[in-house]
Amino acid sequence: MMQQAAVVQDNRLKPQQAAKLLSKAIGALIALLSVALLAPFVLAAVNSEKDQWTYLTLAVIGIITGLVLFSQKTGEAKLRARQVFLLTTLCWVCASLFATLPFVFAQPYLGFTDAWFEAMSAITTTGATVIVGLDELPKSVLLWRGMLQWLGGIGIIVMAMAILPFLQVGGMRLFQAESSDMSGKFLPRSSLMVMAIGKVYLLLTALVILLYALGGMQTFDAFVHGMTTIGTAGFSNYDASFGHFADSPFLIVVGTIFMVAGALPFVLYIRAMKKDIEPIMKDTQVRAFLIFLLLTIVIIALIQVGKGREWGDAFLHTAFNVVSVVTTTGYATEDYGQWGNWSIMIFFYLMFVGGCTGSTAGGMKIFRFQLSQLLLRRQFSQLIHPNLVQVQTYQDRRVNDSLLGSMVAFCFTYFLLVAAIALGLSLFNLDFMTSISGAASAVSNVGPALGDIIGPSGNFSSLPDGAKFLLIFAMLAGRLEIMTVLILFHRHYWRH
Amino acid sequence: MMQQAAVVQDNRLKPQQAAKLLSKAIGALIALLSVALLAPFVLAAVNSEKDQWTYLTLAVIGIITGLVLFSQKTGEAKLRARQVFLLTTLCWVCASLFATLPFVFAQPYLGFTDAWFEAMSAITTTGATVIVGLDELPKSVLLWRGMLQWLGGIGIIVMAMAILPFLQVGGMRLFQAESSDMSGKFLPRSSLMVMAIGKVYLLLTALVILLYALGGMQTFDAFVHGMTTIGTAGFSNYDASFGHFADSPFLIVVGTIFMVAGALPFVLYIRAMKKDIEPIMKDTQVRAFLIFLLLTIVIIALIQVGKGREWGDAFLHTAFNVVSVVTTTGYATEDYGQWGNWSIMIFFYLMFVGGCTGSTAGGMKIFRFQLSQLLLRRQFSQLIHPNLVQVQTYQDRRVNDSLLGSMVAFCFTYFLLVAAIALGLSLFNLDFMTSISGAASAVSNVGPALGDIIGPSGNFSSLPDGAKFLLIFAMLAGRLEIMTVLILFHRHYWRH
Ligand SMILES: [K+]
Ligand SMILES: [K+]
Repeated sequence: MMQQAAVVQDNRLKPQQAAKLLSKAIGALIALLSVALLAPFVLAAVNSEKDQWTYLTLAVIGIITGLVLFSQKTGEAKLRARQVFLLTTLCWVCASLFATLPFVFAQPYLGFTDAWFEAMSAITTTGATVIVGLDELPKSVLLWRGMLQWLGGIGIIVMAMAILPFLQVGGMRLFQAESSDMSGKFLPRSSLMVMAIGKVYLLLTALVILLYALGGMQTFDAFVHGMTTIGTAGFSNYDASFGHFADSPFLIVVGTIFMVAGALPFVLYIRAMKKDIEPIMKDTQVRAFLIFLLLTIVIIALIQVGKGREWGDAFLHTAFNVVSVVTTTGYATEDYGQWGNWSIMIFFYLMFVGGCTGSTAGGMKIFRFQLSQLLLRRQFSQLIHPNLVQVQTYQDRRVNDSLLGSMVAFCFTYFLLVAAIALGLSLFNLDFMTSISGAASAVSNVGPALGDIIGPSGNFSSLPDGAKFLLIFAMLAGRLEIMTVLILFHRHYWRH
Repeated sequence: MMQQAAVVQDNRLKPQQAAKLLSKAIGALIALLSVALLAPFVLAAVNSEKDQWTYLTLAVIGIITGLVLFSQKTGEAKLRARQVFLLTTLCWVCASLFATLPFVFAQPYLGFTDAWFEAMSAITTTGATVIVGLDELPKSVLLWRGMLQWLGGIGIIVMAMAILPFLQVGGMRLFQAESSDMSGKFLPRSSLMVMAIGKVYLLLTALVILLYALGGMQTFDAFVHGMTTIGTAGFSNYDASFGHFADSPFLIVVGTIFMVAGALPFVLYIRAMKKDIEPIMKDTQVRAFLIFLLLTIVIIALIQVGKGREWGDAFLHTAFNVVSVVTTTGYATEDYGQWGNWSIMIFFYLMFVGGCTGSTAGGMKIFRFQLSQLLLRRQFSQLIHPNLVQVQTYQDRRVNDSLLGSMVAFCFTYFLLVAAIALGLSLFNLDFMTSISGAASAVSNVGPALGDIIGPSGNFSSLPDGAKFLLIFAMLAGRLEIMTVLILFHRHYWRH
């Protein structure tokens, strides 16, 4: 997405040049999506669906538009870090708007608000849906939904690895590649990196599709659910979500494992492919993530066993649904909100956690909890030993005040955004739990929220349009690590 | 409470000496409370209540016990900062336990859990009550509840001004008196300070009692409500809370004004009494507090007017109830949870705000929101101008990373405690809104929460004992700025 750009500190790009670069990036994205749209067209044609020509028309128009936009001559463009915020946000907005079209002009012929909601939910890998009656839809739509989520998944990995660390958003500087710094170009590294990510992503997707098919899913279901599993995205072909496959422990286990796989840092897979297995075992973020999942699952499963649920059943469904929410996938095999008041509270908290950085998962991300823990440990130690000087490290990198400050700003902004969106939803007369869990779920890109309306067995279709627009904004901001979007509303951003 | 102590960095106090000092402090507190208990005795005797001799017995036993404990010879004791955490916490626990006795042995003859809940709620100025049928209770009990809150109120001001800044808890170092530093004694300043605070507190209390009486309250009601108003504490003599006086706009206005008065920094009153009026006008915390209140009231009142409520009525009741929650008083003239889903959300947020530091108010306190704003402003500016070096000040003091770190640690701990208590409450099968708002209300020392069970028109009596113990802990921790209590559970605290 950003391959033409190099982030530099000083040389300023002129507005016209920036606009050209923006057009180039958006053009590339639209062309890419349009090519992807050929897949639903072929499927629709094979199945003689009535909307087959609509898909082809949109694809052709999209490819032409994309290529025209892309054909801008920009020379060797260098972007300032602050310009990248706008570029990134606009790219996602335009991509989501293009992705909206098939939902409007083909089945299920949604209105614009619903269609944009569905498209934004897809491309941000959120997975909240406004469509009731998925089981009856033509396969082409289901494929388009799945592909959007799959593309959104890889899009976010590329962004998290190639762009965000340079922008110093929310402590992500921690994951800046050692050999680079803010003033260098990241183009050569980026191209190779995107290729490597793509390879890993394809491989994992193929693997999960294969296993789903082996486990008894029909080929089409395996394909779509494979894509939305590895993208920790969560769209399903069925109103019952993954509950449609609840009879098969094998499928549930495969789903659980590959949701976790999608939430691990992809940089470690790339190293692993170079036979460098050690880092993935030693990575503190991965370790903390897995330990957290394990503990949470054991505790919740034991509570359920205590309440009389059968052991195997309890562990199977707890593991799946906990992993689904923590990795921000959003599948459900059953309505975990019905397990009890305690489970509502726990799953509400789990919505905030998220996976590892540089994965397809949303949420606050494990490393930020680890940094917060360092911060708290330092502060409590200082209360006990006021004169103590401490040097703290995270994965062999020194954790300084500036890094913590940036992490804290992210966390505060996260909570403020959730609070603001929740307030907005409550103004549309949604109840307390729906408002606050809906906001958290959207910002964390989980998908389902809690309660009867938009919980695991609910649907977003009944919400008023205003609430849908709020959630569209929340999904976008959450996906782009919030500050990338919110900074555009800062009064200094547009100065000079 | 801490007049015998001087905080020093190096000289270590031997355990026996520390224990003696602790016994002395607790003895003084118990003696003080016992003397206070003579007031309900006198009232009970005058009214020929059947429990009059119980009050006298408890008072005499308490005075003797207190004096015995107080009579320890400690020499010139010097406490380390870290010992003060334990001492402070134990003082509040013991005081609350002594205050529990009259609720057990006199009317309403509560069981221990309920009685301790009522006493802790009183002394921490929380104001959550387990007693149903306040209107029918003997006046002696009502007086005791009011006096406990009044004493708790002045206790917290003294603590916030004389102790907490030295402990560097949660950014409170910002309010350390200019002329002192961590290594110095604070005894001489403290004594004078306590006297001055006492004078202001008495004056304000007398004023509000007088105005309440002028406004038509019976003398006894004016007395008790005056004490619980200035202490931003919120116990009322009626099940309907301040709603009992809802017919009198004058009383509602007086209540509103003096709740605000109780939530202002008392150090500014002390200066004002020395004819130094300027600081109270120029104080950024006071200004932000008042502006925030005004904005919130106007917005909520306008929403209500928009929904058809009469102007005067809307502004009167909005002002009172908003001020009541923000100052963490907890009176209610009506159930603001019934105004709509939006009001539930807004009042939930308001529970966290709190008043100014160095007042009787609980909550997170205005200055922490201001510091957070500084932090966010700095971080966003850095994203836009990565090389910018910024020097930020708060009320002419430089805000450095260490101060912000300590403030952030407080905020994180605050949210974590609320989340943990809410989870605990949900495990006792309380619903989502009751659990989370109950936790927030207890930690912020507001009093009433939201919803049908423990909302403004509810009562804490129906909660299971386990939930009550959780809330007792939450009220205590919240009152002592959380870290003061939580640090005792840190594994390094008890080492060597
Ligand atoms: K998702
Ligand atoms: K209160």
